[in-house]
Amino acid sequence: MEKIRRNERMSAMMKILSGSPNKIFTLSHFCELFGAAKSTMSEDIDILRDVVSQFGLGELETVTGAAGGVRYRTKVKRPEARRFVGELCQRLSGAERVLPGGFLYYSDILSTPDIVGTMGEIMATEYYSQAPDFVLTMETKGIPVAFATANALGVPLVIARRSSKVYEGSAVNINYVSGSGSIETMSLSRRSVKEGQRCLIVDDFLKGGGTAKGMVDLMREFGVTVVGMTFVMSTAKPVKKRITGEKSLMVMDIDADTETAFVKPAFWLNGDA
Amino acid sequence: MEKIRRNERMSAMMKILSGSPNKIFTLSHFCELFGAAKSTMSEDIDILRDVVSQFGLGELETVTGAAGGVRYRTKVKRPEARRFVGELCQRLSGAERVLPGGFLYYSDILSTPDIVGTMGEIMATEYYSQAPDFVLTMETKGIPVAFATANALGVPLVIARRSSKVYEGSAVNINYVSGSGSIETMSLSRRSVKEGQRCLIVDDFLKGGGTAKGMVDLMREFGVTVVGMTFVMSTAKPVKKRITGEKSLMVMDIDADTETAFVKPAFWLNGDA
Repeated sequence: MEKIRRNERMSAMMKILSGSPNKIFTLSHFCELFGAAKSTMSEDIDILRDVVSQFGLGELETVTGAAGGVRYRTKVKRPEARRFVGELCQRLSGAERVLPGGFLYYSDILSTPDIVGTMGEIMATEYYSQAPDFVLTMETKGIPVAFATANALGVPLVIARRSSKVYEGSAVNINYVSGSGSIETMSLSRRSVKEGQRCLIVDDFLKGGGTAKGMVDLMREFGVTVVGMTFVMSTAKPVKKRITGEKSLMVMDIDADTETAFVKPAFWLNGDA
Repeated sequence: MEKIRRNERMSAMMKILSGSPNKIFTLSHFCELFGAAKSTMSEDIDILRDVVSQFGLGELETVTGAAGGVRYRTKVKRPEARRFVGELCQRLSGAERVLPGGFLYYSDILSTPDIVGTMGEIMATEYYSQAPDFVLTMETKGIPVAFATANALGVPLVIARRSSKVYEGSAVNINYVSGSGSIETMSLSRRSVKEGQRCLIVDDFLKGGGTAKGMVDLMREFGVTVVGMTFVMSTAKPVKKRITGEKSLMVMDIDADTETAFVKPAFWLNGDA
């Protein structure tokens, strides 16, 4: 094999690591791929760690121990997250997107890959330390952002359905009180999660918290611990939700008389971390 | 600013380019970011192009003209795609995943980010040349793979719903004949697409083609051209579908008597391209 130069090794390694966030690659894996010595690879990784940090492209971590190696994680710092969310808020505020009944149209935002990708990176950054085993969402609109978060965390996405489906096998169904006050059903395939796992709930919208509370109850049925809850959009009213401790990116208020939306970055984004 | 070395520039550039597939970055953008001359950046890009190609990490293209620059595209070669799909087929074949009624459980596959990401890359590789403006899917199970494909193509995802929703504004509804023979409704927000656009249909499952045909009809209502259709799984029967020209990754046959699934890579994956 022709000798591979440092800049070639580093570029390829960057693609491989950042293409599978939170996945640990052993040094031996890269030694074999590039035909290089461990000491050389260690040097490459040291330089790469600095590059990633210098250009705000995430974080490279060396993990020690038997299952050790190197992994890439997204890391969106609070000021950067706040700037990104602030720009989204500007796009969503005003009268243009307010629909009859005081609803806000933002489905386009929820399925544009680069926007959703960054939202997922912001959410993942907040919850790496909680080491969730999977991300849970309720169909439909939150699936892209939940998927992007799961991707950044390197874990599977699990989707709760409104009713059990023949192609998902035996399921656990629970009832919950929706935002409109009606009793709804939520269903999850038995095969999709295991007892003792840790779950991060990700969804697009939080109003009263009925659906979120339903997901928490559903996880209790499975013996799963909910380690966090994060939403794209939260309504300013009601102030008191049925759940607590969640992190939303944006907070929305709609003035019904003037049909104007006021969307602001959530308060927790003001931190320095 | 401290001088940035070639290996640092190249690694950062690789992350930025591959993080936004199919998006054109101008040379000036990188010159400014790294404080380097255009000639230097051109050299970097030449080397990077070789690295990407040598390690099978995709493709780097220089685009000339007024809106010119450099872009990254995923490129999964047929033999590699076939190997990947072949491994999936092995996981899905057998009796373990067959559910009552002759259905196959593969929801887990459809929401594991690294699997779905690769499926999206394979699908995108096939349709870059068709230059779709967006990806269309029908809720629910196909959303992750449709999102991954949209991400690789650098275009938005558009999700058709089973009924119109208050938070999506005025919508176009059409009726279609589902696989079970019943008449169903499909709904799409008026705001989500524009007349004259080009659409790639991506979904998880193709049986008779009723839903796919519904999506084609829906696009006609919007004055949109369907440039391709691609599915994760297609059933061997019925042989004649209501649509033609689609590309599925896998073909499934279930023996109802022995309750055994036979899943094979689709024939078109045997090519060399």
